[in-house]
Amino acid sequence: MAKKKPLILVTNDDGITAPGIRALIEVMNTLGDVCVVAPDSPQSGMGHAITINDTLYCDTVKVREKEPQQEYSSSGTPVDCVKLAVNEILKRKPDLCVSGVNHGSNSSINVIYSGTMSAAVEAGTLGIPSIGFSLLDYSLEADFEPTKKFIKTIAEETLKNGLPKGVVLNVNIPKLPASKLKGIKVCRQANAHWEEQFDKRVNPLGREYYWLTGEFVNEDKGEDTDEWALANGFVSVVPVQFDLTAHHAIQDLNTWKLS
Amino acid sequence: MAKKKPLILVTNDDGITAPGIRALIEVMNTLGDVCVVAPDSPQSGMGHAITINDTLYCDTVKVREKEPQQEYSSSGTPVDCVKLAVNEILKRKPDLCVSGVNHGSNSSINVIYSGTMSAAVEAGTLGIPSIGFSLLDYSLEADFEPTKKFIKTIAEETLKNGLPKGVVLNVNIPKLPASKLKGIKVCRQANAHWEEQFDKRVNPLGREYYWLTGEFVNEDKGEDTDEWALANGFVSVVPVQFDLTAHHAIQDLNTWKLS
Repeated sequence: MAKKKPLILVTNDDGITAPGIRALIEVMNTLGDVCVVAPDSPQSGMGHAITINDTLYCDTVKVREKEPQQEYSSSGTPVDCVKLAVNEILKRKPDLCVSGVNHGSNSSINVIYSGTMSAAVEAGTLGIPSIGFSLLDYSLEADFEPTKKFIKTIAEETLKNGLPKGVVLNVNIPKLPASKLKGIKVCRQANAHWEEQFDKRVNPLGREYYWLTGEFVNEDKGEDTDEWALANGFVSVVPVQFDLTAHHAIQDLNTWKLS
Repeated sequence: MAKKKPLILVTNDDGITAPGIRALIEVMNTLGDVCVVAPDSPQSGMGHAITINDTLYCDTVKVREKEPQQEYSSSGTPVDCVKLAVNEILKRKPDLCVSGVNHGSNSSINVIYSGTMSAAVEAGTLGIPSIGFSLLDYSLEADFEPTKKFIKTIAEETLKNGLPKGVVLNVNIPKLPASKLKGIKVCRQANAHWEEQFDKRVNPLGREYYWLTGEFVNEDKGEDTDEWALANGFVSVVPVQFDLTAHHAIQDLNTWKLS
């Protein structure tokens, strides 16, 4: 008797027509029954934003003919898409949620700004094994072919093994041809931050405004980090948790004079 | 010789005119030199969103006469406000960043959706001791008087002791009169999640849309959690980290067939 096919929810933050999500859908269609619920427009940098003061639209769409998956396009954020999928659209809880493939890195501290990873984290809070995938190439013409083999392996292993409770995966893939990709490394998040430089301009009405631009500063020389792996030709896999408690700090804080 | 006064950055996610931030400013003015950089409109549920595809405005404002602090109102998210303050407005790195007082809870899993906490986390990534404060009362008429004593104590202790590297504080305060508030408890984040119920409606043009509504589900019976503390009349203080690596899961993942 054939095993029941896994139900796979696909979302992203670059919008439902982005090349990255199309590549991800292609791989997922080889692994299970796919349902896509993704934003109707780019939502990069949305973090874990949700829509609470506005209406949400969610309509069925067909982006490419002859593909088997169901697809829904929503006015909401990536996190809204996951909530809509799980609570409104899908008949049962999916066996896997994948988000991406993001156009650009979500390694290191970028995880906290990332709509791609927030969608995966949201699914994680609902008890669904989840993975965010990102390619280190912002271009809309990025080549996703070399990523597919790695995406498939990591998704298959996740379906097979499950994930520890409270953990989702953050996968980043270097911008390299297939022949140069050395393999997969399980890593920790590098300790890094952004230093912004605001580009100050004046609008036609004479009012000052800014563009946010910044420089990524990695203070972490560890060879067990995602930044090291990516710089050295490896796909990085970081297990990410959404219990944000700094348990190691509790003892310290209990010595404070708080009464 | 008088000690130099600490420089304190104040922000929030309910907008610069919200009663919660006015209460926070009042307390901070008793502790140091205050600079306010806050959103010009409510940004609840924005999580760690940043403005990367749009312009940012940031103008000096005077919300109340006769108050000593500098104030800036920005079109950006809470995280944008922190970036603008630190990189564009302030002459030196602040000694403390406080965000809030939020109108509504940011306990447990709410930390990942919260613009209030994301502002504090952003400042934390820049090496600034930071605290997010929230009162468990969504009303614009909420009474912030009972919160002030606790805010002052926690801010003073943070200025005195500093915070461990990579840690910021998430402070939640029950909606209780001063006489019923029992004290402060250092806690861990309760293990909880949201179960959404979407309210489906039809707009005047006949198109379906949704409102996000949900129910908070706490699966965690621990008496060391923020939910327990709040339900029992205590102010909860959770140390929050932005290294999201689930270090305990790395060993497990290294047994997977990833090559």
